[in-house]
Amino acid sequence: MSLVTESSWANAGGTLSVHTHDSDTVQGSMRFAVFTPAQAANGPVPVLWYLSGLTCSWANVMEKSGIQHAAAEHGLMIVAPDTSPRGDSVADDEAYDLGQGAGFYLTATQAPWAPHFAMDQYVKDELPEVVGKHFKADLSAQGITGHSMGGHGALTLHLKNPDQFKSVSAFSPIACPSQVPWGQKAFSAYLGDDQSTWANYDSQQLVKSKPSQATLLIDTGDADQFLAEQLTPEAFIETCKAAGQSLNYRMQPGYDHSYYFVSSFIRDHVAHHAAVLKS
Amino acid sequence: MSLVTESSWANAGGTLSVHTHDSDTVQGSMRFAVFTPAQAANGPVPVLWYLSGLTCSWANVMEKSGIQHAAAEHGLMIVAPDTSPRGDSVADDEAYDLGQGAGFYLTATQAPWAPHFAMDQYVKDELPEVVGKHFKADLSAQGITGHSMGGHGALTLHLKNPDQFKSVSAFSPIACPSQVPWGQKAFSAYLGDDQSTWANYDSQQLVKSKPSQATLLIDTGDADQFLAEQLTPEAFIETCKAAGQSLNYRMQPGYDHSYYFVSSFIRDHVAHHAAVLKS
Repeated sequence: MSLVTESSWANAGGTLSVHTHDSDTVQGSMRFAVFTPAQAANGPVPVLWYLSGLTCSWANVMEKSGIQHAAAEHGLMIVAPDTSPRGDSVADDEAYDLGQGAGFYLTATQAPWAPHFAMDQYVKDELPEVVGKHFKADLSAQGITGHSMGGHGALTLHLKNPDQFKSVSAFSPIACPSQVPWGQKAFSAYLGDDQSTWANYDSQQLVKSKPSQATLLIDTGDADQFLAEQLTPEAFIETCKAAGQSLNYRMQPGYDHSYYFVSSFIRDHVAHHAAVLKS
Repeated sequence: MSLVTESSWANAGGTLSVHTHDSDTVQGSMRFAVFTPAQAANGPVPVLWYLSGLTCSWANVMEKSGIQHAAAEHGLMIVAPDTSPRGDSVADDEAYDLGQGAGFYLTATQAPWAPHFAMDQYVKDELPEVVGKHFKADLSAQGITGHSMGGHGALTLHLKNPDQFKSVSAFSPIACPSQVPWGQKAFSAYLGDDQSTWANYDSQQLVKSKPSQATLLIDTGDADQFLAEQLTPEAFIETCKAAGQSLNYRMQPGYDHSYYFVSSFIRDHVAHHAAVLKS
């Protein structure tokens, strides 16, 4: 489990670093970024996993969201993995919403995606193991967040593993993927047409069957270009209400799907996680 | 003086927008970005000009520095112009440090750069006129800052126009351009080999002849890859001391020349400007 450090910068009083390693889970090389706050000099700190959206790598959130500065205030570590394995040995598709960069945080069962596409297992098991070994991370205090496809990933990973991912939030999540074009396309390709297998990766279905004890913090812009077709907030809000899921879903007036939106509310999200993880 | 709005986003409780217009000063199209804070709804707000470094456009600072979030706290407008005119009708060079993207905030006298390269006049006169006409900017309260080549621009524009640019700061500025390769190459090309014309664009020389009453706030990383060859902080600090120029030059341990550095200290800079401009 050797780790290669590709880059490292002083940032926000701590260190931002980028790493690659050979992943058993996805059977190929994976890349992730870590923001280590200054507080880690005094011992392990809580970890907030950030899952990115379609096409993104570690760089989008670390370059554009300002999450490091909020994490520095609260003493949280931020870890942002790439959105899928990449490279010539990994299956791909010309579309931006399938294949490399579009892992959808699930375990593919269909060719040509299995066995490389298993990003849920990677985020749940292998990445924490690697981070726990190489960084000052307190793995008893893990939170998870993400944007768009990564918001879907954060919600589903929390709902299925609430004891591991104790705090959760999301920006513009694809919360009802079985009902929308992005999710239907990805799930058909990765999981096949038997829709009974889809529910395990659908936040709306997971909330219905087993709501969590945590409060879900979600921000979505009401000028988001994907709002009605892909994000369907009303349907998710309605499901949470019926299931008794504690939810703070904030529609943010005028905001779109960009990182200008994410950066505008990232401090609220980091504070939400810190309140749970440091209690 | 018609203004085209290319893009607009809700951001940090205000609005980030990108514009182009035909500039008389540079005899071509110029592009700039404006962050308008929510406070502008109540009347004109102070303006902080941000001048970018080599190769940059408006996008680097607005995507990567987080300056909007600090500006939102203090109610400042941020305006970030492109670093030079661009396009087929404008002279260029294959090198990254000459021609388009490398305007150096001076008025070129040499072919083929004159008459398009006159970024100092553009920032001093035409851009404030355009911004004052189209945005809720209080032009009696202007500050100026920038990074690298843009730090050079901010310092020189302040030192020559302290009544207009009342507050000043810089990240990793090229403060002694006549003495270093970047400056010597640019000044030779744009101004010619008569070095008596260079002093007007050299912060070190300007401080010697006429220190300003303001305090210069400067941050530079001590791991900056351009520190010794291009940025020469010691020489500038020494000159300020001898000239009685008030200076707060902070060497930041471990930081480099990147926007991970700028974003780490941008809040201090915006607060420095706000303290002067709102007093």
